[in-house]
Amino acid sequence: MISLVIGLPKPSANSKPHATFCTPPTSHRQREECEGRTAETGKVLSMPAYATNMRLKFPILALILEAVTIIVYALLVVYDTSDSHRHDGSHAETNASHPSSPMTLYPSKYHKYMFCRCAYQDVHVMIFIGFGFLMTFLKRYGFSSVGINLLLAAFGLQWGLLLQNIWHLHDGKIRVNIERMINADFSTATVLISFGAVLGKTSPVQLLIMTLLEITVFCINEHLVVEVLKVSDVGASMTIHAFGAYFGLAVARVLYRPGLRNGHENDGSSYHSDLFAMIGTVYLWMFWPSFNSAIAEPGDAQLRAVINTYFSLAACALAAYATSSLVEKKGKLDMVHIQNATLAGGVAVGTCADMDIQPFGAMVIGITAGIISTVGFKFLTPILASKLGIQDTCGVHNLHGMPGILGGLAGIVAAALGKKEKVSATSQACGLASSLGFALVGLIMKIPFLGQPPDQNCFDDSIFWEVPEEEEEHEERLTHGDYSKNKAEA
Amino acid sequence: MISLVIGLPKPSANSKPHATFCTPPTSHRQREECEGRTAETGKVLSMPAYATNMRLKFPILALILEAVTIIVYALLVVYDTSDSHRHDGSHAETNASHPSSPMTLYPSKYHKYMFCRCAYQDVHVMIFIGFGFLMTFLKRYGFSSVGINLLLAAFGLQWGLLLQNIWHLHDGKIRVNIERMINADFSTATVLISFGAVLGKTSPVQLLIMTLLEITVFCINEHLVVEVLKVSDVGASMTIHAFGAYFGLAVARVLYRPGLRNGHENDGSSYHSDLFAMIGTVYLWMFWPSFNSAIAEPGDAQLRAVINTYFSLAACALAAYATSSLVEKKGKLDMVHIQNATLAGGVAVGTCADMDIQPFGAMVIGITAGIISTVGFKFLTPILASKLGIQDTCGVHNLHGMPGILGGLAGIVAAALGKKEKVSATSQACGLASSLGFALVGLIMKIPFLGQPPDQNCFDDSIFWEVPEEEEEHEERLTHGDYSKNKAEA
Amino acid sequence: MISLVIGLPKPSANSKPHATFCTPPTSHRQREECEGRTAETGKVLSMPAYATNMRLKFPILALILEAVTIIVYALLVVYDTSDSHRHDGSHAETNASHPSSPMTLYPSKYHKYMFCRCAYQDVHVMIFIGFGFLMTFLKRYGFSSVGINLLLAAFGLQWGLLLQNIWHLHDGKIRVNIERMINADFSTATVLISFGAVLGKTSPVQLLIMTLLEITVFCINEHLVVEVLKVSDVGASMTIHAFGAYFGLAVARVLYRPGLRNGHENDGSSYHSDLFAMIGTVYLWMFWPSFNSAIAEPGDAQLRAVINTYFSLAACALAAYATSSLVEKKGKLDMVHIQNATLAGGVAVGTCADMDIQPFGAMVIGITAGIISTVGFKFLTPILASKLGIQDTCGVHNLHGMPGILGGLAGIVAAALGKKEKVSATSQACGLASSLGFALVGLIMKIPFLGQPPDQNCFDDSIFWEVPEEEEEHEERLTHGDYSKNKAEA
Repeated sequence: MISLVIGLPKPSANSKPHATFCTPPTSHRQREECEGRTAETGKVLSMPAYATNMRLKFPILALILEAVTIIVYALLVVYDTSDSHRHDGSHAETNASHPSSPMTLYPSKYHKYMFCRCAYQDVHVMIFIGFGFLMTFLKRYGFSSVGINLLLAAFGLQWGLLLQNIWHLHDGKIRVNIERMINADFSTATVLISFGAVLGKTSPVQLLIMTLLEITVFCINEHLVVEVLKVSDVGASMTIHAFGAYFGLAVARVLYRPGLRNGHENDGSSYHSDLFAMIGTVYLWMFWPSFNSAIAEPGDAQLRAVINTYFSLAACALAAYATSSLVEKKGKLDMVHIQNATLAGGVAVGTCADMDIQPFGAMVIGITAGIISTVGFKFLTPILASKLGIQDTCGVHNLHGMPGILGGLAGIVAAALGKKEKVSATSQACGLASSLGFALVGLIMKIPFLGQPPDQNCFDDSIFWEVPEEEEEHEERLTHGDYSKNKAEA
Repeated sequence: MISLVIGLPKPSANSKPHATFCTPPTSHRQREECEGRTAETGKVLSMPAYATNMRLKFPILALILEAVTIIVYALLVVYDTSDSHRHDGSHAETNASHPSSPMTLYPSKYHKYMFCRCAYQDVHVMIFIGFGFLMTFLKRYGFSSVGINLLLAAFGLQWGLLLQNIWHLHDGKIRVNIERMINADFSTATVLISFGAVLGKTSPVQLLIMTLLEITVFCINEHLVVEVLKVSDVGASMTIHAFGAYFGLAVARVLYRPGLRNGHENDGSSYHSDLFAMIGTVYLWMFWPSFNSAIAEPGDAQLRAVINTYFSLAACALAAYATSSLVEKKGKLDMVHIQNATLAGGVAVGTCADMDIQPFGAMVIGITAGIISTVGFKFLTPILASKLGIQDTCGVHNLHGMPGILGGLAGIVAAALGKKEKVSATSQACGLASSLGFALVGLIMKIPFLGQPPDQNCFDDSIFWEVPEEEEEHEERLTHGDYSKNKAEA
Repeated sequence: MISLVIGLPKPSANSKPHATFCTPPTSHRQREECEGRTAETGKVLSMPAYATNMRLKFPILALILEAVTIIVYALLVVYDTSDSHRHDGSHAETNASHPSSPMTLYPSKYHKYMFCRCAYQDVHVMIFIGFGFLMTFLKRYGFSSVGINLLLAAFGLQWGLLLQNIWHLHDGKIRVNIERMINADFSTATVLISFGAVLGKTSPVQLLIMTLLEITVFCINEHLVVEVLKVSDVGASMTIHAFGAYFGLAVARVLYRPGLRNGHENDGSSYHSDLFAMIGTVYLWMFWPSFNSAIAEPGDAQLRAVINTYFSLAACALAAYATSSLVEKKGKLDMVHIQNATLAGGVAVGTCADMDIQPFGAMVIGITAGIISTVGFKFLTPILASKLGIQDTCGVHNLHGMPGILGGLAGIVAAALGKKEKVSATSQACGLASSLGFALVGLIMKIPFLGQPPDQNCFDDSIFWEVPEEEEEHEERLTHGDYSKNKAEA
């Protein structure tokens, strides 16, 4: 009895009915033991052998990617400073609705520079703190959530900046400025959304490869949608949120794990992990107006984008709280809903954020998104998992998928109603279809041999991280009742 | 013995002497059980029956409030974009010291826009992260602190924007711009301060109604003080901090709970909850210069507001640390003081932040506030609770009440000394009196049947939130010594 | 057996072999008991008597320092507002590469003001949240990390503003503006870096004195390097990072504790303390571009500083993850590396951040810093402790020391290659030598009688803070198995 508590597996554990998997781990040390056994012998599993040791493949992959990136940067990337001919058209925007304006007066130029700088900083916080901490809700997966988030975004922004601007070379060079750094940050958001769908079930190696692939596909779709089809998607409901969510769900589908059908011991939150996640939620909520307005046309369009997002989120929050209470037994609030559905208004208002939909229009979009998202968490996510084999860890379908589509649809309606000049409802519909279509590329992400953890080690930092052992010592002491006696035995 | 540890109440618990209340809860599951019993039978309590089930009343209230808000917005609220005649005087400021300036030159206009945008973002962080996390210090009330904070502020900013601008319609419309969003955020601060006084003892339904009422009263007082009496209160020491604190204390008075006279098991912090609270403290501390300068006149006045607040807070921090050590046994620091009293300098310098009091003047105000606030926590809060029946959970009297009055008094002195043009000491005194007078409206907030929790469920998230059960399982495992055996029993 | 678990020391504990020190503490209450005993009797220790009671000396020191500061401010410090002749040259910069420009046009002036304001806010966040939470990684030292960080920075910025500007009086006055507040924040960074080296082993009294001394030395070196030698060090790799690190290591050397040779029970992290630390890491990582560009020349130089830092950090992150996995057994990631080494790129690119090194040059610096830093944590820190007697709690040598020197060297190379006008390689080398030389002043910080904690109370908040007791009660309950029974016994 004591042996298990102090972290050693019982010798007879493997002969029990559920011996195909290790007994649910009760401590970090035991989890490690369990993982070690499967990694070395591979016998107790009927699935393909797992090679979760990253010693060589992860460092080599990361260093090669970085080395190649640096070489390409040395060849292609320069500052967009005035001495590198910044006035000869290099300011053409990724957003088609944003005409280049080399003739702008001084104030407007500085205004734009300062606006970009502030917006860049806010978006940066959303990417690294917002997404990173939002995913720390899992009780034993906080290191990976915030740590791997940082890794993927740090690589992704380098890769995204290259691919987004490869279409706009000037004198064979990519000229970096703040606005392009914002767009590079944006490109990483797609990966971080997809990361949410497969959280806890993938290795850093797989995720780096997914980053490389997904950002490539994103840049192709974004170019097609924004530059070719001239679609208006200032807050990227379609090109980032819907695309990222369905790409992630496609990956989750091909990596489906029957062994997790009945849930997993660690696939849940703890009290403090939920509070850490709220740091992410609140930052995303607060800075979303910057996200949706960051690449909007300076002036009225930008102001509209800020105001619409502000009110959409406020209305969405009320709706999410109300719906959460309505669908839960005894009317209690559910942290999962609060952490996620309160943000759906920011996603859903993205496409028409800079359009003339008026504050109440934004609020109607927000309230709808809040209700849909909460209902999705309660009723749709379990069905996706059981019927379609899509195990969506963070429920990105409810936060980014459905609200992203809602945003696309709202954009079509707004375009049809003439809420923005030079934007056609047909183009908008094509943009949505294209974003959803390209997301299916996620289905090719079947790369199980790249360090994917076995089922019983899912949702557990200790398979890829050194984890402090203090908890076991604490348990040990409680059980033995005497610290020094325990030490003497060791 | 084991039964209690695994979270089931002992059958004989109700027959014990203190059976009027449940035995102090030891686990989330048990607390829920306890609450269920009282909610269903209502027998064991001599107080009015508690109806803490929010299933219908909370969602209905929230959705009705939001629906009404959206309808009013559809009728009244438009963007303050240039195409809606932004130059025809719609920039009249809430702050009387801030003349509308339709003739401003380009640079100044952009300067103001950018300043507002940065200040708005900083104030937003103070409202949602600052206030939200500051209140997470309670060991089992973090979900409510940061979650209900978000709910109240999200509703409050919509309501505040309406009421603050209903006095300044143009063509029958309220024109939203960034500055008005800052003021809307400000209006929610009053509610969040009052929330601190009643933290842990109220339901979301009560709090939503308090938000509606308090912001209404705040807007009336603010209009009277700033527009009619022409009082200078750029950092809102009087209209937000003193008003919000005494409004909250009035509510705490009418909701006095004799059953909590001797404290409550959960009315305290844990090590990590104190660290979460420090996130709130540090954000408030860092961004307070933006709060006090956000609606200051661009230029010198704004710069003074930033500098005065910066130095007041720095001096206040030293004073709070020194006083905390001085009043505690063995000279130790007390987290409650550090979390709160370090901020009192920001409150107290608010009224004269934009006045010409020089850095050392701000530092004198800051050091005074830090000492008063710390001494208040140590000696005054217990007296308020025992003698006056005011149970002030977060000690808002020490952080916002007394420092707010100090700020008002400093403003009177500064006005008398001519530190700001066109500001009279008499008006300032009237502004302080008015703010304190209107705060007494809090005394009518006696609405005990709206889901108010029974005494034993105070300071506990699990009465209104689904709370992760991992802790109990953990305890279970420790007690049973074997996870799978335990599962088999279940 | 039970007695120890509930927090009381065993009576016979002192007779055991390791009785010279208390038995490793298992609970806050016990730790306090232990400390109390040593503080009162002093018998069980062979070292000098410890007087950790701060009741009088800490408040008196803090209040005297603050009072003196206020008096000096009253005599010397005024606002840099237009009415105090701001145009007469008072804008001379601390950074020598930054000529004063009283003739600048309106847009540029506002641009600079707004840029400074944004940069100031970002730097402020790095100082108070970044450094503060980065150090919360220790399992029982979070209060001190974030709390004493606030105390030292709050005092340091007042002191730093005085000493940095005492060289530039105008009409006998120091004129405060936003840029000088940024520089004041910078000066505190040196102290916070040094604090990391001695974290857990010093008292607030010692640290306040260290702040006073270190900022004084910093200001002398900064004046010499930047104003006299005309060294370019826009991101302060040499004057802040290398200086602060080696100053701290010098202090750690003179405060060497043989009793901690074999480690300490509390000198490690816990799962949640590591997550709190990641808040600090991510904020530092995100805002470092503002740190390195805050005092750069507006325009191209500023843009280069932002871009170089952005890419250096991105490349550094990849390198840190790769190297961490490479040097750890089984290829796992180590939180210590991720928390620190990912930031080394920001330090190392500091000196040449505003130079024309192109993005790929910044990435090469970043990747080098990430590798050096991680390798330093793994192999060098243990050697420093065992061979040189330098116990570097946070590993500041790896995050600030070596990357700071790397930054200095990169600056010499860049200067030699002509990457910035009017900057000579010789001057740069002198700047590095000067910064390292002045850091040796740290060796005089031998002040062991100012409340330094005894070895067994190191890394433990409870010696200087009131710490919540909930943990013990929890343990008690678990052990006794019955809450009310336990109460009855008490």
